[in-house]
Amino acid sequence: MAAQNHLDNLRVVLVSTRNPLNIGASARAMSNFGVSKLRVVNPYNPAFREAVSAVGASELLRSAEEFSTLEAAVADCSLVIGTTAALDRELHHPLRVLQDGARIIRKRLASGKVGLLFGSEKHGLRNEELSHCHWLMHIPTCEGHLSMNHGQSVAVCLYELARADKSKRSTKDVKRASSAELDRLTKKLLAAISGSGWIKTGAEATAEEKLRRLVHRLDVSSADSTVLTGMFHKIVWKIHSKK
Amino acid sequence: MAAQNHLDNLRVVLVSTRNPLNIGASARAMSNFGVSKLRVVNPYNPAFREAVSAVGASELLRSAEEFSTLEAAVADCSLVIGTTAALDRELHHPLRVLQDGARIIRKRLASGKVGLLFGSEKHGLRNEELSHCHWLMHIPTCEGHLSMNHGQSVAVCLYELARADKSKRSTKDVKRASSAELDRLTKKLLAAISGSGWIKTGAEATAEEKLRRLVHRLDVSSADSTVLTGMFHKIVWKIHSKK
Repeated sequence: MAAQNHLDNLRVVLVSTRNPLNIGASARAMSNFGVSKLRVVNPYNPAFREAVSAVGASELLRSAEEFSTLEAAVADCSLVIGTTAALDRELHHPLRVLQDGARIIRKRLASGKVGLLFGSEKHGLRNEELSHCHWLMHIPTCEGHLSMNHGQSVAVCLYELARADKSKRSTKDVKRASSAELDRLTKKLLAAISGSGWIKTGAEATAEEKLRRLVHRLDVSSADSTVLTGMFHKIVWKIHSKK
Repeated sequence: MAAQNHLDNLRVVLVSTRNPLNIGASARAMSNFGVSKLRVVNPYNPAFREAVSAVGASELLRSAEEFSTLEAAVADCSLVIGTTAALDRELHHPLRVLQDGARIIRKRLASGKVGLLFGSEKHGLRNEELSHCHWLMHIPTCEGHLSMNHGQSVAVCLYELARADKSKRSTKDVKRASSAELDRLTKKLLAAISGSGWIKTGAEATAEEKLRRLVHRLDVSSADSTVLTGMFHKIVWKIHSKK
């Protein structure tokens, strides 16, 4: 398992998981494949740390970080990937199959933290949650049987990520913007555009979601994100100074 | 999933499984990856066919064949593979990691039935049971955390078996912006930022160059480029209307 050291930069993020046994089973799969950092957002059952399904992974489960918002849970991640079984609903993100997605994630783990998101057993990841993602990944399952068991999908994803990578690139990747940086950029762009008529009245929330998705799709570097945020800051200032 | 037709020849054989939920979870994973023939040897709980964990796979579970001996369960298989987490105990069989083993199994599935055995949650496959195997296969897990959850190990094995030999993209690559589109985007952004103090006097040409480079680095899609250009158009309009 050659990629194991890089897996230190992986954050498995379980969002609104209902069954604590699934959190435990995810923890066990993580320990099987050498991933140690678990983040839990709004778990349905606060007693998840006692899940008996975390065989051999109780310490990992105990040290899991708990967050009340997804935004906070991925703030330090420079790449955020949502997993989804859905192929039919309208997805506003690039979608990659696990094998291809894992190759990209492995490369990115060499230079920064990557958040891998799993949604609730009931709904998967919701649109607002997906808007925090750079792109989506799915396990190639059969038509009519797309939806996998929660713990099994975590296990399969981590197995693929831990797979030794034969095609390694030697070039260093440019440091990508963290989620916090992308959030600042989104908010600044939103401030610049608000009141211009681009955002329809009553659709402000949707507009922010749309903008966040667009900004994530750009997959901007940390340096460029700073430049763009500064630029929009100046534009906002200019607009207000003209009033 | 190119190997799917050959998977008709695969028999997943669960030996002495204790928890019926694990049988159900295995059935679900089978349906996810296009494997339909389940064989159960001496299940601990005879009511396994009702397992609620077989989401979307209840028909597969109902049609599972039940055997009282492993010998009978693999009688028609020309290749029998045992799965094991154990690396330390004395194994009298060749042992292959999943990736290599799956490649051999896929080839053999083209010409005959292959039995893939999973032992009980407590003991795995016993020596007598292993003696029916041609060779053994294990999922490469971390030292100290070798043993996987039953349903997760079934899912990972079937995922690897169902893996298409060549990695296929499931979505078409999104059309990237043309140079003309990027140029329009650059000019609009330049118009929005000009006069805000972001561009130093005398450095306009350099600024445009910088901006164009930045816009190119974003590697924006054609659709997103149109959205952004429209957005900056609105911002420019807003700035001028405030004069």
